[in-house]
Amino acid sequence: MSGGVEWALHCCVVLTAAPAPVPAGRLAELHDVSGSYLAKQLQSLSRAGLVHSVQGHAGGYRLTRPASEITVLDVVVAVDGPQPAFVCTEIRQRGPLATPAEMCAAPCAISRAMAAAEHAWREALRAVTIADLAESVTGDYGPAVFDGIRAWLR
Amino acid sequence: MSGGVEWALHCCVVLTAAPAPVPAGRLAELHDVSGSYLAKQLQSLSRAGLVHSVQGHAGGYRLTRPASEITVLDVVVAVDGPQPAFVCTEIRQRGPLATPAEMCAAPCAISRAMAAAEHAWREALRAVTIADLAESVTGDYGPAVFDGIRAWLR
Repeated sequence: MSGGVEWALHCCVVLTAAPAPVPAGRLAELHDVSGSYLAKQLQSLSRAGLVHSVQGHAGGYRLTRPASEITVLDVVVAVDGPQPAFVCTEIRQRGPLATPAEMCAAPCAISRAMAAAEHAWREALRAVTIADLAESVTGDYGPAVFDGIRAWLR
Repeated sequence: MSGGVEWALHCCVVLTAAPAPVPAGRLAELHDVSGSYLAKQLQSLSRAGLVHSVQGHAGGYRLTRPASEITVLDVVVAVDGPQPAFVCTEIRQRGPLATPAEMCAAPCAISRAMAAAEHAWREALRAVTIADLAESVTGDYGPAVFDGIRAWLR
């Protein structure tokens, strides 16, 4: 998984607390990361329809829908793409005992085991929303943590 | 996940059918892959104690224990290492609102969500053994598939 996922998730959690759109540069400053690097992650989130870029003087990024309707999986797929961790290269169709292609319409046993694990991973990430993360942050550090972020963003 | 995992799993399934140790070169030939590439995966399996290299004229690789006691997770960890897909870089400790280190003894909410997904992925891979894979292959193609491999290996 790319490091961009971690930055993108932190940005989404911050945006749940923001009273107004937040410029990319402010998000970069808050997280102490290069603006151009973070801009790339925010563009990925924007392409996936998770954040919207508001143009103009008071512009910046905001979430496009309630944080309870954006899952961690949405963010992971937005940043790292939809491809699974395991890619089957159809080894069974190679070598002197190659299985004929017409017998390989269904995935092989190894591919099925990997797909089941990938599914379990995705379901776990789909079960947690950005709102859940924000609630956990409040649970960990108290509600003042988002007051602090709000004050800093103003 | 590296492509080596797929090769290593195929080799382990083949070894369940082998009546004697199988030289790395024969496994490479059977799978139509470079010998040096496959040797690397077999060395990883050997270091992890999943296969044993028998020296000498009739030497080669064999599984070190029953295939029902080797999980897909064992092979994945042997080849790709034990590190999780998500690595937390402690973003919460950065920037103008950095959380003090003494408040960061426990993993943050994002890290916990990722760890739960990683756990689900590992449990799914731990639930499938090499014996299960071999049984699935038999179910897919009939028992003759392993007779064919045995005959070719002789």
